[in-house]
Amino acid sequence: MPEPVDFYFDFSSPYGYLASTQIDALAAKHGRAVRWHPILLGAVFKVSGGAPLTTVPLKGEYAVRDMARCARLLGVPFKLPSKFPIPTQAPARLTLWARQPDDAGAKRLALALYRAYFADDRDISSPEVCADVAAACGFDRACAAAGMNDASVKDALKVEVEQAIERKVFGSPYLIVDGEPFWGADRLDQVERWMASGGW
Amino acid sequence: MPEPVDFYFDFSSPYGYLASTQIDALAAKHGRAVRWHPILLGAVFKVSGGAPLTTVPLKGEYAVRDMARCARLLGVPFKLPSKFPIPTQAPARLTLWARQPDDAGAKRLALALYRAYFADDRDISSPEVCADVAAACGFDRACAAAGMNDASVKDALKVEVEQAIERKVFGSPYLIVDGEPFWGADRLDQVERWMASGGW
Repeated sequence: MPEPVDFYFDFSSPYGYLASTQIDALAAKHGRAVRWHPILLGAVFKVSGGAPLTTVPLKGEYAVRDMARCARLLGVPFKLPSKFPIPTQAPARLTLWARQPDDAGAKRLALALYRAYFADDRDISSPEVCADVAAACGFDRACAAAGMNDASVKDALKVEVEQAIERKVFGSPYLIVDGEPFWGADRLDQVERWMASGGW
Repeated sequence: MPEPVDFYFDFSSPYGYLASTQIDALAAKHGRAVRWHPILLGAVFKVSGGAPLTTVPLKGEYAVRDMARCARLLGVPFKLPSKFPIPTQAPARLTLWARQPDDAGAKRLALALYRAYFADDRDISSPEVCADVAAACGFDRACAAAGMNDASVKDALKVEVEQAIERKVFGSPYLIVDGEPFWGADRLDQVERWMASGGW
């Protein structure tokens, strides 16, 4: 079996959301699994000096248009949330909590959280909203709400962020295929070629 | 005839170089001409707060790898120049000088300038080097050297930069198709789809 693809993303990242709707199917075509790594871009930006895209003059305005255009091209529902960007500890921790027993369930939950935020304009920075999404995905609501606050889950997120920084992740989505890094939903075509060809 | 595509680029932009090797053929497939607009990203960055890509922590290091990888995929010779980035008044003015009588000749010259910088590591911030490239392209060397310093050519570059800023250009390459803006060599596939379909 080839190595899994590593997929780093922040729940407040529109392009991370777009990539999340594609990456597993894309990797599966090439016999690859995908490891999903929710991270906190705020912590990463302290190292990289980055800033939330929509706050950047001119580029931010363009990005809002580009996000919607890319989403339409993929046929993915998208609306820039009324509160944007948001802190994403709650959905990241919830995903890591769900991952411990069930990686596939955690991915379904992550997709539902992303959709709640970017398609339905629900504020997933709220642990209450996150617990509601978990319940709608079939998780026990009380367990999910408690799980997000578990010390081991908080530590797991810290480790994810530290490892991402060690691996020089500076944005979302960020994908690593056999050691080769790819940044951006617009590199998914190259990610696919890399998996198919082993590089060029 | 459909409207020409507007192609904004800085001669120090690796992704601008990559786009320059593709855009005319791509537009021609859809019966479109392309207007080439050399600009000065330094002036644009004063408005947008942007910074030369390779100076950005982490992202810069990634970008160097990504540029080379994108170039290999396109089959375009590329080597990050030993002096990078550079001021680009000289090649931009030379291109505008050549454009006055001969748009096609100006594009050949612009391609040769880009190649001199990104394939052959020649410092095109130097007016002397630019004049040499012009001579190799069949222009009269003395006329080219004088033309770069012509007041009307300097003014033409100021106008190009001002118009770019008015049109909210914040990076290179930046393409406008029927009023729709696209930033980055990685949007050429969308540029092509937009020309083919009239949008989505």
